[in-house]
Amino acid sequence: MCRWMAWLGQPVLVEELLFKSKHGIVDQSLHARMGAEPTNGDGFGLGWYGTGEGPGLYRSVSPAWSDPNLRELAAHIESPLFFVHIRAAIGSPVQESNCHPFRHGKWLFTHNGYVGDFHVMRRDLMLAIDPARFDDVQGTTDTEVVFQLALTNGLEDDPIQAIARTIGLIEDTARRHDVEPLVQGTFGVSDGESVWAVRYATTGPPRSLFASADAHTLRSLHEENPRFALLTDDDRLIVSEPFSDLPGVWQEIPPSTAVTVRRGGVLEERPFAPEVVSAHAA
Amino acid sequence: MCRWMAWLGQPVLVEELLFKSKHGIVDQSLHARMGAEPTNGDGFGLGWYGTGEGPGLYRSVSPAWSDPNLRELAAHIESPLFFVHIRAAIGSPVQESNCHPFRHGKWLFTHNGYVGDFHVMRRDLMLAIDPARFDDVQGTTDTEVVFQLALTNGLEDDPIQAIARTIGLIEDTARRHDVEPLVQGTFGVSDGESVWAVRYATTGPPRSLFASADAHTLRSLHEENPRFALLTDDDRLIVSEPFSDLPGVWQEIPPSTAVTVRRGGVLEERPFAPEVVSAHAA
Amino acid sequence: MCRWMAWLGQPVLVEELLFKSKHGIVDQSLHARMGAEPTNGDGFGLGWYGTGEGPGLYRSVSPAWSDPNLRELAAHIESPLFFVHIRAAIGSPVQESNCHPFRHGKWLFTHNGYVGDFHVMRRDLMLAIDPARFDDVQGTTDTEVVFQLALTNGLEDDPIQAIARTIGLIEDTARRHDVEPLVQGTFGVSDGESVWAVRYATTGPPRSLFASADAHTLRSLHEENPRFALLTDDDRLIVSEPFSDLPGVWQEIPPSTAVTVRRGGVLEERPFAPEVVSAHAA
Amino acid sequence: MCRWMAWLGQPVLVEELLFKSKHGIVDQSLHARMGAEPTNGDGFGLGWYGTGEGPGLYRSVSPAWSDPNLRELAAHIESPLFFVHIRAAIGSPVQESNCHPFRHGKWLFTHNGYVGDFHVMRRDLMLAIDPARFDDVQGTTDTEVVFQLALTNGLEDDPIQAIARTIGLIEDTARRHDVEPLVQGTFGVSDGESVWAVRYATTGPPRSLFASADAHTLRSLHEENPRFALLTDDDRLIVSEPFSDLPGVWQEIPPSTAVTVRRGGVLEERPFAPEVVSAHAA
Repeated sequence: MCRWMAWLGQPVLVEELLFKSKHGIVDQSLHARMGAEPTNGDGFGLGWYGTGEGPGLYRSVSPAWSDPNLRELAAHIESPLFFVHIRAAIGSPVQESNCHPFRHGKWLFTHNGYVGDFHVMRRDLMLAIDPARFDDVQGTTDTEVVFQLALTNGLEDDPIQAIARTIGLIEDTARRHDVEPLVQGTFGVSDGESVWAVRYATTGPPRSLFASADAHTLRSLHEENPRFALLTDDDRLIVSEPFSDLPGVWQEIPPSTAVTVRRGGVLEERPFAPEVVSAHAA
Repeated sequence: MCRWMAWLGQPVLVEELLFKSKHGIVDQSLHARMGAEPTNGDGFGLGWYGTGEGPGLYRSVSPAWSDPNLRELAAHIESPLFFVHIRAAIGSPVQESNCHPFRHGKWLFTHNGYVGDFHVMRRDLMLAIDPARFDDVQGTTDTEVVFQLALTNGLEDDPIQAIARTIGLIEDTARRHDVEPLVQGTFGVSDGESVWAVRYATTGPPRSLFASADAHTLRSLHEENPRFALLTDDDRLIVSEPFSDLPGVWQEIPPSTAVTVRRGGVLEERPFAPEVVSAHAA
Repeated sequence: MCRWMAWLGQPVLVEELLFKSKHGIVDQSLHARMGAEPTNGDGFGLGWYGTGEGPGLYRSVSPAWSDPNLRELAAHIESPLFFVHIRAAIGSPVQESNCHPFRHGKWLFTHNGYVGDFHVMRRDLMLAIDPARFDDVQGTTDTEVVFQLALTNGLEDDPIQAIARTIGLIEDTARRHDVEPLVQGTFGVSDGESVWAVRYATTGPPRSLFASADAHTLRSLHEENPRFALLTDDDRLIVSEPFSDLPGVWQEIPPSTAVTVRRGGVLEERPFAPEVVSAHAA
Repeated sequence: MCRWMAWLGQPVLVEELLFKSKHGIVDQSLHARMGAEPTNGDGFGLGWYGTGEGPGLYRSVSPAWSDPNLRELAAHIESPLFFVHIRAAIGSPVQESNCHPFRHGKWLFTHNGYVGDFHVMRRDLMLAIDPARFDDVQGTTDTEVVFQLALTNGLEDDPIQAIARTIGLIEDTARRHDVEPLVQGTFGVSDGESVWAVRYATTGPPRSLFASADAHTLRSLHEENPRFALLTDDDRLIVSEPFSDLPGVWQEIPPSTAVTVRRGGVLEERPFAPEVVSAHAA
């Protein structure tokens, strides 16, 4: 099922959001509330921008709740932009190469959900990846194939459009295989400067997705909260499910919506729909 | 919190009880019902008697639900007597040397529960271990110390009495440290021929423990059940929590009770109480 | 670089060959003598026939020399036919899904060596796999692709011919990619009854491969050896490198040779050459 | 056998010393030259000072050469002072709690070598640890006991003296057990400001230990070397074995010597001998 979070804002110790939030992403590895299952114990990944070139990755097959290295890294790595993903595997092996986020150059990619009947379409979808990228596929998840397809479809130029084209391609591929198309989930992308997120399901309600309110709103709603007092206008969180029950803190991203978060705390929402491309053109 | 199971009976493929029971021990690693937490994902262990000398051990830090090797071994190892333990760590590291069952010669030992304020007493309890056994302690759990103390107190001659003396010693040690004594849990022991189990808590209700009914009862209660039709009079299960909701299948072991299961499906219950030994004598 | 071994004969405890041979396969994980590197520490796998349906697999990312579970399993699993492979990764991740042997139904497959420029050809080779088998590829090694190609080329009917056709296909694919074709290594296959092995390199000397002499020869050469006294006419070992320096014990399989080992200790050698199939037909 | 390194100087990306040195510490995990064994593949640890409070630890049971997370962290963590240790286990399990460096507050501790007959003395040595520290022992290595004894003996006030007293105590304990005393190895300590190192063996040549020459010497010896051009007077390396064969770069620390490295590249050597304390006083 999986859960993920993205931070974009002032540089913070990663632990602030992983371990010092009441219902932060690590707590969600044992006690998720909004998914089909409370447990997301099939590995995890941290992708962060900061010191060094491009994003760093720490991925592990351990459950996030019990990995001592995650606590260490979270307490000693500071970052203005990072993703964390906790995994609940559905079928593919628990191995580091199947842990999100995935990376290409300066880009990170993460996903909560699944591609229905992926095993039926895996060959055709892998064929649709730019042949020059084929060998970049190192694991066996649907997400990694989605990522490589999105790169093939121009992710580095326009992430939202690339995801729209990719989902369109997948749905079309399902139809050609006579299976009911179903792309389910939320997607997160970053280049180290901005964060893009999509919430979408071919049918039915998509997986949950929330954004934190702007810092001004948070401070005025909860004047007594010492953590919110430290927030700047730069700070935004995108999360699979809220870290707390505080009223006014979390705004739901509606279904079929794409979100762009830019420096300065700017959050833009726009409608999202798959882009239908002809199978032959792809 | 942990859960465990013991099988004593006809030789069966381990998977029969691990993966082919609706709410078997592997399902309990994600969905335990009778403990403080549903998740027991901090490693597991299988100890079995069969081919080769003495019991074999397979212990892993992976959650039982996702370990592909456990499925393989369960499908290819047959045993007339085996223990499985799934761990929910409270404090000590997730490492194989902290996974139950523990072994000494032909003996296996497993535990669900905890020793209250163990960290306060750890030194004194380790000092009470027979010095010749001190170096056998390879991990950091309370259970391993309990096992070594029980060996020191004659486990190989009389398992129940040795556990009674060990719990008495631990409770006494707590009092000398001015902490409230609390030994909580269920204990399982085997020498490859019989299984002994204890359910006890210094105060409050102890962790749950159940035995399967005798084969005759099971067959007559559930005539239509093809699995029960295969049971022989030899077969008994001891489990932390029932594998199913079928009426009449599981009998609760009462608190403060010791159970002995012998070949032929014989199950004997007797009252259990810690044996108070003077601290100085120990 | 990798090393592997196959046992076919009387049922033995696996440890007999893994830990009780002076220079057995586990010793070769630290101290291989005949390869480019002495260390084969990037995981290992044991595939065995015995109790239960089809072969069992135990694969681990730990070095074979330090995995306590391997010692346990080896001491408690008896088998008349098993493969062990120790891995020295060249490029692909150290993960269980990349550990040999690979399995399909009752078949096991193992390999020591590499496919030159595999990353260049990976897409084309995966496309040449029977589409119905495409989703069976769970890792990223060249070997797993070779195995799926061999299955596509009739491994279940004629293992040697299937390997010949597969190598022919790979060499042809290399030529079409304007890279120097290079398939290097030794291959082992079993269906639980017989063992097939191939030693081949497109150019240069192939990786080493040896068979143990027949039991009669061994006993008469080394009358004083208590282990050889226990051998029956059924017993044969195929190994990447000898387990000992004893004269007369090991016969080298020549380059470009295929070997079939059948029950009764029968060992047949015949010349091996890739079967050239036209790229279009494939 | 183990190998370790310490960097003290200008902040550098950890990878500079781990992966970009020809015979750096990661290369030594496969190809050590000066030890009994070339392979140090039983886990490793990185302890670094930098962002966040106190030193961070990353410890893993994977061999250093194959752990993708180590490459990631090394490429994205910058530190003015860090330790790396690669382990060759002798007896105790391969688990993270047995990987060096060990930590207490701001202190890091690492060791290459062993305490002879440790299993005979383990109980007595653990009893000699300050009882308030007893529960800090989380693994089963001799090194961790040495560290806790050194803390008991005043490491936080005078690291060299504390090690001298600890070795004296161990040698005395051996004599009382009628075993030949043997403390073998090199020890490294840091508080985040300075590095202390000791080279000592009760009998025979101790494990090797080297310090890099001062920056001025390095630059004038190897004017053409672009890496040395970047060195400042602050920079010093302490290593189990040299990273290169360049003449003049490495100075051997003599046996029975203690070294103190302070900010500014200051390196002080003085004779080292165990401090004999009476068993009863301890």
